[in-house]
Amino acid sequence: MERIPILKMGDFLLVTIQVDLYDQLAENLESDLINTISKHSSKGVLIDISAVSIIDSFMGRILGNIAVMSKIMDAQTVVVGMQPAVAITLVELGLSLNGVISALNVEKGMDLLRSKMQTSENEEHLDDNDNE
Amino acid sequence: MERIPILKMGDFLLVTIQVDLYDQLAENLESDLINTISKHSSKGVLIDISAVSIIDSFMGRILGNIAVMSKIMDAQTVVVGMQPAVAITLVELGLSLNGVISALNVEKGMDLLRSKMQTSENEEHLDDNDNE
Repeated sequence: MERIPILKMGDFLLVTIQVDLYDQLAENLESDLINTISKHSSKGVLIDISAVSIIDSFMGRILGNIAVMSKIMDAQTVVVGMQPAVAITLVELGLSLNGVISALNVEKGMDLLRSKMQTSENEEHLDDNDNE
Repeated sequence: MERIPILKMGDFLLVTIQVDLYDQLAENLESDLINTISKHSSKGVLIDISAVSIIDSFMGRILGNIAVMSKIMDAQTVVVGMQPAVAITLVELGLSLNGVISALNVEKGMDLLRSKMQTSENEEHLDDNDNE
């Protein structure tokens, strides 16, 4: 199976990573995600990595890329479901997932995205008032 | 990766099938699902098969098993995201997914589950009134 499915859930997109990412698969995922964000004007991307037992520098870079690309498309990325052992290994390897926000599980990730959407709407509202 | 992750989303559980199911994986999925339904008192199970390009009799039986098991645990199963080609092949092979309800995508599947929950609550309410 050559593509990782992207599920639309309201304003957000959900991706579950269950297989080892290799070059072509990661590339497909990045372009599919960008296209889906653009198509549905999605406001957030949730990446579930609960089935991932090791994050190496390649995977870390892919996650970082997705976060940056989504940000440019005005969508926030949250990585959810990281196994404790993976977090420990990340730190031990000195890999910091720069620019990637994380949450404990999908539900908490969605709450986080919703609160971020709320905050940015309020800020826009404040800016509008300032301009008047 | 030996297990398919099960994501809790409110009252429902979401499973995305991205890899070919073999005996052990299917067995693990069934037992994990039953345990998760019991743990969270989930009311519905969504199985996304948008990445599945062929459903054979084994996969059909697994989906049927999950639907029956979940029903016994008072949870409804909805299969979502079936590719058109898969639906055509199913009919041509004479495989009918007995007892399995389907929806076009995750969002529609969730709406379906919510409306089913609503209906069963109303029925219980009516029964209560009859008894009074």
